[in-house]
Amino acid sequence: MAPSVAVENLNPKVLKCEYAVRGEIVIHAQRLQQQLQTQPGSLPFDEILFCNIGNPQSLGQQPVTFFREVLALCDHPCLLEKEETKSLFSADAISRAKQILATIPGRATGAYSHSQGIKGLRDAIAAGITSRDGFPANADDIFITDGASPGVHMMMQLLIRNEKDGILCPIPQYPLYSASIALHGGALVPYYLDEKTGWGLEISDLKKQLEDARSKGIDVRALVVINPGNPTGQVLAEDNQYDIVKFCKNEGLVLLADEVYQENIYVDNKKFNSFKKIARSMGYGEDDLPLVSFQSVSKGYYGECGKRGGYMEITGFSAPVREQIYKVASVNLCSNITGQILASLVMNPPKVGDESYASYKAEKDGILQSLARRAKALEDAFNTLEGFSCNKAEGAMYLFPQIHLPHKAIEAAKAAKKAPDAFYALRLLESTGIVVVPGSGFGQVSQLNLYIL
Amino acid sequence: MAPSVAVENLNPKVLKCEYAVRGEIVIHAQRLQQQLQTQPGSLPFDEILFCNIGNPQSLGQQPVTFFREVLALCDHPCLLEKEETKSLFSADAISRAKQILATIPGRATGAYSHSQGIKGLRDAIAAGITSRDGFPANADDIFITDGASPGVHMMMQLLIRNEKDGILCPIPQYPLYSASIALHGGALVPYYLDEKTGWGLEISDLKKQLEDARSKGIDVRALVVINPGNPTGQVLAEDNQYDIVKFCKNEGLVLLADEVYQENIYVDNKKFNSFKKIARSMGYGEDDLPLVSFQSVSKGYYGECGKRGGYMEITGFSAPVREQIYKVASVNLCSNITGQILASLVMNPPKVGDESYASYKAEKDGILQSLARRAKALEDAFNTLEGFSCNKAEGAMYLFPQIHLPHKAIEAAKAAKKAPDAFYALRLLESTGIVVVPGSGFGQVSQLNLYIL
Repeated sequence: MAPSVAVENLNPKVLKCEYAVRGEIVIHAQRLQQQLQTQPGSLPFDEILFCNIGNPQSLGQQPVTFFREVLALCDHPCLLEKEETKSLFSADAISRAKQILATIPGRATGAYSHSQGIKGLRDAIAAGITSRDGFPANADDIFITDGASPGVHMMMQLLIRNEKDGILCPIPQYPLYSASIALHGGALVPYYLDEKTGWGLEISDLKKQLEDARSKGIDVRALVVINPGNPTGQVLAEDNQYDIVKFCKNEGLVLLADEVYQENIYVDNKKFNSFKKIARSMGYGEDDLPLVSFQSVSKGYYGECGKRGGYMEITGFSAPVREQIYKVASVNLCSNITGQILASLVMNPPKVGDESYASYKAEKDGILQSLARRAKALEDAFNTLEGFSCNKAEGAMYLFPQIHLPHKAIEAAKAAKKAPDAFYALRLLESTGIVVVPGSGFGQVSQLNLYIL
Repeated sequence: MAPSVAVENLNPKVLKCEYAVRGEIVIHAQRLQQQLQTQPGSLPFDEILFCNIGNPQSLGQQPVTFFREVLALCDHPCLLEKEETKSLFSADAISRAKQILATIPGRATGAYSHSQGIKGLRDAIAAGITSRDGFPANADDIFITDGASPGVHMMMQLLIRNEKDGILCPIPQYPLYSASIALHGGALVPYYLDEKTGWGLEISDLKKQLEDARSKGIDVRALVVINPGNPTGQVLAEDNQYDIVKFCKNEGLVLLADEVYQENIYVDNKKFNSFKKIARSMGYGEDDLPLVSFQSVSKGYYGECGKRGGYMEITGFSAPVREQIYKVASVNLCSNITGQILASLVMNPPKVGDESYASYKAEKDGILQSLARRAKALEDAFNTLEGFSCNKAEGAMYLFPQIHLPHKAIEAAKAAKKAPDAFYALRLLESTGIVVVPGSGFGQVSQLNLYIL
């Protein structure tokens, strides 16, 4: 009989989904990496540099020592009873590990936890948010997740009923959003960030796109804002954030705030404000605005992508809706405990007076300064290279330069049946071993852009 | 304006989904646990015993020392350079950690990995499967996942297009399957395990249910088999497995084999055979049968539920279909590295001659003997209790006894608008602090059963 499973009879939502940051170019790069291992010297370069995604530790960034000390002690608590441990670990890592283990029933770091995450860790996260924002946060509002992605999927799963449910997303956007909307069968309603004004977000454009979608019968349910921007690197001005919050309240939209780059700001005239802080400082409370803030241990100065930790803070949802969110979380039982612990650590790092504070501070500052230095160096390089132009890198971990390809290159791309930017990215990979993602992967049409760490 | 998000306008697939093992009774138990903390002595018991799910470390089972040593060293590799480490860790844990770190590009346990998992760890898993089965396994067929659940969701997402796509599932079943099918909008096609024959699986019943579903226009795409059984604890006989494999091949069904209890067998006359081993020993190769085997670090003697590690081994799918599976995996980037490392360790534990072998073996045997002893003690207890009867616990981690409730109890349940078994489970919780799950949560109708660790 015919094969029971073929591409033709798979879920069409899966077939439609695209995810450029792990797409064709990355798969080709993995093949070249294997070739370098089996046939060294067979390519014009000795190693592959994966700049397709913010994965700092794969490019040599070292993890923060305090975080790793605590994780090791929680993984193997027997160490806490050994004398040698005192000389191997900092005193505050030891006391923090003890404190964390005390909040875990039976000290069992190998047990499933509450589906929202261990209560004591959520308390620490809520305290961290409170101290960051100056407005109270509640552990019951925290859902600890395996990185930010599962939280985003969970909200899309909840909100999208069919192809007539729309989600407003920035273009260019991090393709998690388009992929998740495609997988859940909804409509991506684009709004456009303006490269000419440093990737500005205009409320008038938001409004126009919303009305346009509504006129086509789309029920627009939520607005995604990525701040600092991915892949565009802009940091929203406070006034702009006020307008966005007001817009969501007036239009009855859920505000999905991707705030995973909250520690990654490289310019003095901008600072991070969470959307919850903005909403609360406008006097908006629980009843005014459903708001979800996503945070991750993968970004910031921590860069712990492989640990898959993160959380979402949900406010402004009714109790019955929260029960449904809880149910969806519970079907996967809980997120991984190592990631849960790390999520609590990044929101509650060493403080002045702790033994680790000085070294922690030095590591943190070193990483952030290095990121800022590299962002500036790349930005400057692009702006002096012929055919390139690049906006200021205010935050996040990426540059999104524009390339003006010569006519002949565009013709060659056409002949190879590739988008010009994809063609360029492939040629860059094959000549240098550097992996970037073409701007078309982020929905950026009629321009040529690259995604570079 | 009206609240933008209300239960009425959520995704109806989410509303339809049920997950009894974390449902009403568990939520009530969590409330009672908080009450015990804030008002000690206010209940007729001092602690809550969560027997709603196989979560051994929450009930005091200790993790295997070797596994945790390796995890701690991989979390904080600086330890490997310290002299004191040699007295704190076993020599083979140190060498294993070094070996694992050497397979991770840049030794970066905090970096996103390949979306299927780190290649060196998949090699170790494939070698473990090969030695278990006596038939070769390939690292390219392994997708390391955050526990078994995400793998199951991934396959359901791939196979289910709409409500006319069906998945054959055992009843009673672990509710992950019904939940995942509901979330993806497919049809659960039940087949019934026969309590009278020790939860036997009859091919004639399978065939009947398949034809019945097809006559209703359902396109049945896959068969789920849980072996050893959850929640029923039976271990399939080899002959029965041959018939199941033949049935799937003849009917063009994907065989989804939940094999997470492969180490949990408590009777001498039964042994675990993976479905892949069975298929290969029948001479069936890649072209004969699409087969997915799920394994997890949460069960067996390891019981590392909170680490969220596991894998699926997929064989018999065409290259274009595999590309789609890879794409779905890549949208979540990768599973957590701690869980990945642990998945490689459980498939490649210490061997005779390794420094840890004796203590590892003692820990493993102790845990498995204790599980077997408790299963037998509970089975015997149920079979002597008035109104209870219980099948032999051959494997897995559960007992699924039948309770014959007196008429008055059934009337009281009716008055409380509860299913009789749910009513019993609630009363058991409120009287003793023991949390069990009513059989109705597993789809077991017209009987009263409890799920007990």
